[in-house]
This record gives sequence, structure tokens and C-alpha cells, in this order.
Amino acid sequence: MTVKISHTPEVQKLFDDACGLSADQGSPRVKALMKRIVNDAAKIIEDLEVTQDEFWFAVDYLNRLGKSYEAGLLVAGLGLEHFLDLLEDAKEARAGLGGGTPRTIEGPLYVAGAPICQGEARMDDGSENGTVMFLKGRVFGADGKPLAGATVDLWHANTKGNYSFFDKSQSEYHLRRRIVTDAEGRYSARTIVPSGYACSVDGPTQEALNLLGRHGHRPAHVHFFLSAPGHSHLTTQINLSHDPYLWDDYAYATRDGLVGEIRFVEDAAAAAARGVEGRFAEVDFDFRLQAAPTPEAEQRSRRPRALQEA
Amino acid sequence: MTVKISHTPEVQKLFDDACGLSADQGSPRVKALMKRIVNDAAKIIEDLEVTQDEFWFAVDYLNRLGKSYEAGLLVAGLGLEHFLDLLEDAKEARAGLGGGTPRTIEGPLYVAGAPICQGEARMDDGSENGTVMFLKGRVFGADGKPLAGATVDLWHANTKGNYSFFDKSQSEYHLRRRIVTDAEGRYSARTIVPSGYACSVDGPTQEALNLLGRHGHRPAHVHFFLSAPGHSHLTTQINLSHDPYLWDDYAYATRDGLVGEIRFVEDAAAAAARGVEGRFAEVDFDFRLQAAPTPEAEQRSRRPRALQEA
Repeated sequence: MTVKISHTPEVQKLFDDACGLSADQGSPRVKALMKRIVNDAAKIIEDLEVTQDEFWFAVDYLNRLGKSYEAGLLVAGLGLEHFLDLLEDAKEARAGLGGGTPRTIEGPLYVAGAPICQGEARMDDGSENGTVMFLKGRVFGADGKPLAGATVDLWHANTKGNYSFFDKSQSEYHLRRRIVTDAEGRYSARTIVPSGYACSVDGPTQEALNLLGRHGHRPAHVHFFLSAPGHSHLTTQINLSHDPYLWDDYAYATRDGLVGEIRFVEDAAAAAARGVEGRFAEVDFDFRLQAAPTPEAEQRSRRPRALQEA
Repeated sequence: MTVKISHTPEVQKLFDDACGLSADQGSPRVKALMKRIVNDAAKIIEDLEVTQDEFWFAVDYLNRLGKSYEAGLLVAGLGLEHFLDLLEDAKEARAGLGGGTPRTIEGPLYVAGAPICQGEARMDDGSENGTVMFLKGRVFGADGKPLAGATVDLWHANTKGNYSFFDKSQSEYHLRRRIVTDAEGRYSARTIVPSGYACSVDGPTQEALNLLGRHGHRPAHVHFFLSAPGHSHLTTQINLSHDPYLWDDYAYATRDGLVGEIRFVEDAAAAAARGVEGRFAEVDFDFRLQAAPTPEAEQRSRRPRALQEA
């Protein structure tokens, strides 16, 4: 029979004390959150009869997870980051808001401070033999009209599925740019087709996914932050239509309305007109932002990131 | 009004998939545990209206916690390690077992493979100007008779509150020994009085404790693993009576029956008889083990430790 003690006055007093409920100092909000977390952890231990070995495996796992800087990968893989998006959607719907381009997960690999370009940008440094990709589109406001001066902050992996800054073999801000839309709301980038991405096979996220019987692949994708005065900040990404993992993303980021249709062009004349040689790719993607209900909604979350904005 | 979606079929399908419930491979046990953890995490987010900023702060905190190898310190500070002891006690009581010296927390700083000594040991290497401490006692079996050949595996901090192996300035296995009891069940150690310990003021555990309005101090203490054939492994520690944090331990390890009464002796003749100079300390502490209900009970948990036994 399962033994349970977490509800007893003795254990509740222990947890109240441990969570600082009897202390004058500290943050009441953190205390309330921690009491709930500790209480729920104790109930899980009791209800599922978690063994000492299992508990300490989990503690050791957390150490290894953090040492590898993979907590952000894990919460994406467990569906919790997508859940936060669904919850934001539901909150907006409840408030009578919503519409526009869907949000989706940010992931843990944004780096602030990318070069700012007007209207168009070259994102790759020419060091890779990737397939050239021309990515362009327009940003529309809540009224359906083109938004001039919107910032399209985009980042994506290279042909090996790695991101600059985290992959030190790439140049600074490689495949990361901020493009300011022109008078017609247009942005345009010349870059290279990104590769899909997989969690490190030796890392703690893939270790967990293996125990869950799952792969750790993401389809090829491009991340976006979109911002413009008077409009809600949008964190989203487009997942490229040719990737076999398009609808089998370990991080659940692919959503209806966020598939980037990629066209591969093998036409020497078209290539010459574009100023490139050989096969290249084209992706057109437009965004529609929502009106910001509050000034704070214009800002992205204060999620700790690899480099904070100066 | 709080918006809740975690109970909906859409989100339950997401979590079922994320936790591998629809996958053939993987561990059914891990899947069941993870589904409960993810579900409870989602409910906490909804019930307490956790913001994006709070969620990502927590994810970043986990990265920093693991990077500092402090997950073991945190679960001790949150009372969860003591809770596991209370739960073991309750399980034993339910089974009609129990009695003997109380268990208490192991903490994260054990290192396997310490030198083995017969009956007595010198634990310090003489490099520190610490107060000499003579620690001795007897180990009794479930029948109340002295246990010969029991292993007393003990470890403690130095005069600065640091542990060898983790503190690279100390010699190998400094203040760590395994003492095998003699024919009368006796063990005896000459060592130095350990200092109390505090979580690193710059570390993530103390960061959490600050938010909870709590200190991170532990009283001076000595850790013990006790083992003998036919007897349940005992993980425990004695906390020294002179320490001001004796009953204000951030890790909740001090228990009735585990206070080591320390006597400081300032008597030149007594010191000379002991072969030391100046003030010294004495601690006597006996242990009583329980009969092992199963062979597995003779072993310590398979908690991942800094060095696994070869």
C-alpha cells in the first residue's frame, strides 16, 4: 500500500519553512510558486512511489542538463514551450484578440544585437557551399495595410544545422540579421537553405527523448521576431515545406499558417538574373501583426538569452 | 479570469505524444513519470498564472543550477531530501520495521573509494591548524550486540567548511576514511573539528534561498555510511552540539538522536596523554543498525556520486 505523509502537519510545516513562508524577507511570489512546486513534487514521489534511485537519477540529470545548457531544448521537446503558445492563444481569444500570423516557439538559440539592414540583407558570409535561398515577403499591420519600418529579426541554422555564436566555427552573427521593412512593408534576404536540426545525440535532451522512445529532429526552419510600433511583438518561425520532419518536429513548432513553401529553381537564365550560379531556392512569406493591447505587448519576453541587448 | 487548457483533448494529445505514450520504444516507467511531471507543470503554470518571463527565468535557472553542480544542494534546501527520509521512516513503520539510529540526508559531496582502516584512522593530513578532534564509538547490531567488521564510511568538511575532491586545494581523500570496527564493534578516528558549511553566496542555491528569505548555513557535521552483513545500510550524520546552526540547518538534516555532543578539553596533561598540544575536542557516538529485511537493503542507493566505486 502506498505510504503518504506529504499532507501531514509535520511535512507541511517542513515545506512551509523550506519555502520561506515563515520568513519576513524574500519574494512572496517565489515563495508561493516554490511551495506549490515542492508540494507537487512530494505528491508525485508518493503517488508514483518514486524510488531513491529514481529521485537521485533525476537530480543528477538536472545537473547534467544545466551543464550542457539544454534546459531550453528539453522544455521544447516536452511540449511545454508549445503549450505556452497555445495558452497565449487561448488568453487572447478570451480577450477578443488574436488573428494575424500565428506565434510559435522561440527556442534557446537567439542572440541579440544582429546587424540592422534597410529593406534587404545578405545573411551568409559566403563561406559555405549551401544552396542560395532568396527569402522575401511583406509585413502587414492590424489594419491589413503594409507596415513600413517594422523590424524583421531573423536567425537560422547553417547547412550543418548549427547556429552561429553557439557554433564557434561560424563568423559573428552569421545567418542572423535585423531587416527594417521598406515603404511598402517589404523585407528581402539572400541567405542559404538551412539544414534541419537534431538534439546532440550525446546530450541530456536526447537522453530523455530516448527514454521516451522519441527522436530529437527539427525540420529546417527560420526563426523570426517581428516588431513595429503599436503592434504586438510576434515570436514565430517558418518551417520549410521540403523537410521530411515538417510535421514531425520534436519541438512541436510547426503550425498551420507557418509552413514556408520552398521552390527550388534549376534554370540557368533565372539564376543569372539573380546573380547566382546553379540551383537556388525561393521562399515568399508575409506576416500580419496584431494591434498591441498594451505598450508592454510591443516587447518580447524578458527570457534570459545568450547575449542580452546592450 | 484564469484561462485553462491543459485538460483539453488537444493539449492532452500533445503531452501524451511528447511523453512518448504513443511510441513503441522507450521506458514505460519514465513515460508515466514524465507525463505526470509535464501535466503538473502545466497546471502550475495555469493555476498560478505563471508569466512567460517567470517560466524562462526558471528554465535559465535550471541551466545555471546544473552548470554549478548544485541540484543536490537545492533539493536539500527545499526540504525534499529530508522528506525522502521521513517517507522511508513511514514506510518502515508501516512494515513494522524501524528503530536504531535515525537516518538523515547524504548530501551531494560523498566520494567513493576512501582509504580503509582497521579499527582506527587518522583522517586529516596535518596541513591545517585545526582543533584536533577524537571521534569514537561503537556499532551495535539489531540484537543490541556489538558488530565486529562493520564499515564506518565517514566524511566531513575542513576548517573552512570545504570538502576534499570538490576543494582541489585539499589532498586526496582528506577527511574521508572507511573504518572497519574491531571485535568489540569499536571505531575511532583522530581528525580535526569541521567547520559549518554555507552554500556559495554566488551560487544558484543561495540565489533561490535569498528569494525565499532564507540563509544557506549548515551546522558543523560528520557524514556516515554504515554497513554490515545482514543489516540495512544506514546513511546518516551527526551534527555537532556547539554549532549555533545546530537546529537551524538549511538542509534539515539535524534530527533527535543525531546530535554529536562535543567536549572541548583544555588540559595540558590530558592533551599530553593524547599525544597532542593545546585544546582538543572529543565526540563519542554509537550507532545501532537494523536487520536488513532484504539483501538489497544492505546496499546504499545507487545515487550518482562524484566518483563511482570501481
